[in-house]
Amino acid sequence: MAAWGERLAGVRGVLLDISGVLYDGGEGGGAPIAGSVEALARLKRSQLKVRFCTNESQKSRGDLVGMLRRLGFDISEGEVTAPAPATCLILKERGLRPHLLIHDGVRSEFDQIDTSNPNCVVIADAGEGFSYQNMNKAFQVLMELENPVLLSLGKGRYYKETSGLMLDVGPYMKALEYACGIEAEVVGKPSPEFFKSALREMGLEAHQAQ
Amino acid sequence: MAAWGERLAGVRGVLLDISGVLYDGGEGGGAPIAGSVEALARLKRSQLKVRFCTNESQKSRGDLVGMLRRLGFDISEGEVTAPAPATCLILKERGLRPHLLIHDGVRSEFDQIDTSNPNCVVIADAGEGFSYQNMNKAFQVLMELENPVLLSLGKGRYYKETSGLMLDVGPYMKALEYACGIEAEVVGKPSPEFFKSALREMGLEAHQAQ
Repeated sequence: MAAWGERLAGVRGVLLDISGVLYDGGEGGGAPIAGSVEALARLKRSQLKVRFCTNESQKSRGDLVGMLRRLGFDISEGEVTAPAPATCLILKERGLRPHLLIHDGVRSEFDQIDTSNPNCVVIADAGEGFSYQNMNKAFQVLMELENPVLLSLGKGRYYKETSGLMLDVGPYMKALEYACGIEAEVVGKPSPEFFKSALREMGLEAHQAQ
Repeated sequence: MAAWGERLAGVRGVLLDISGVLYDGGEGGGAPIAGSVEALARLKRSQLKVRFCTNESQKSRGDLVGMLRRLGFDISEGEVTAPAPATCLILKERGLRPHLLIHDGVRSEFDQIDTSNPNCVVIADAGEGFSYQNMNKAFQVLMELENPVLLSLGKGRYYKETSGLMLDVGPYMKALEYACGIEAEVVGKPSPEFFKSALREMGLEAHQAQ
């Protein structure tokens, strides 16, 4: 294998995923992936800029970073690009008042958002919150809108926890799309806009990042 | 409007839907749609053959017919084509042992089916049974199969209850399709096979039925 310097010629920064790259989630908070704490420390000692780009939508950035620091990772909240804060920007820009179908762990990210008289639905990885009752409520809100808007924090199919594979937000996004005959707007990876905002926060162009 | 005789020239039988045609379901068993009890009685007095073709998958045929009779409809179990019995035939023919993601009300239709060591998933309108936990279990069963088979009893988007619109099985079928990267086999309307089996049971060809 070529040395790092050679393989990364022209690269000035690295965007890292979190779940499945730094750690696997699960009961009791999950576990670091072997070697990842040291690999991150090594990256941080290098000349490369480091930023984290995650579709994590069950936890606020504060909770996520706190958990990662307890697992030994060198990471701070300002280094994380996540879909919930990106969604809040969109909601404010477009005057949207969401009905939130989200995990309680991420609710604090929406504290400053007006949720009265909703004119859109925001769906995130709600985990056990994806009850029939909650899905039906989101569906009914959408069906009552003249122009139904569905924002989805990512569209992942599933993710791995220490206990096994878990359904992610994507399947539930597809369910609402089909039920209402609409197409969701995805905030998060793989949306190019989302990657671009992470690069902007690093002060880099796409060809300078890996 | 033309008289019945003229409009139905050449027609020897009528296939009737049940939910949304004879009655709207809901709390306390639902309510007949205005005029439907009399319309059915009139059809039955005519020369036309009458059969019921439903995607109802929350109730066994016995329970469905009992409920309709209490609402005043002239209907018997043998006159009903429904997806659960049609699915049981398919399971037996193909040696499939299902993991059942279904409503408790229809479970008795699967009493004679071997559900040990499942090699497929059967999904029906499970209502409140569409919990995250139950959806995730069905997903995990499919992901462990070399050739995942998903049978869906209908693919309706939603239906109307007296209390409002309710998500049907279709959105949840789409969720599992997306999560696993597979396509479900639909048993029930609008599958041509399903209509054909209803016509066979009436002894009619497609052009003879309305």
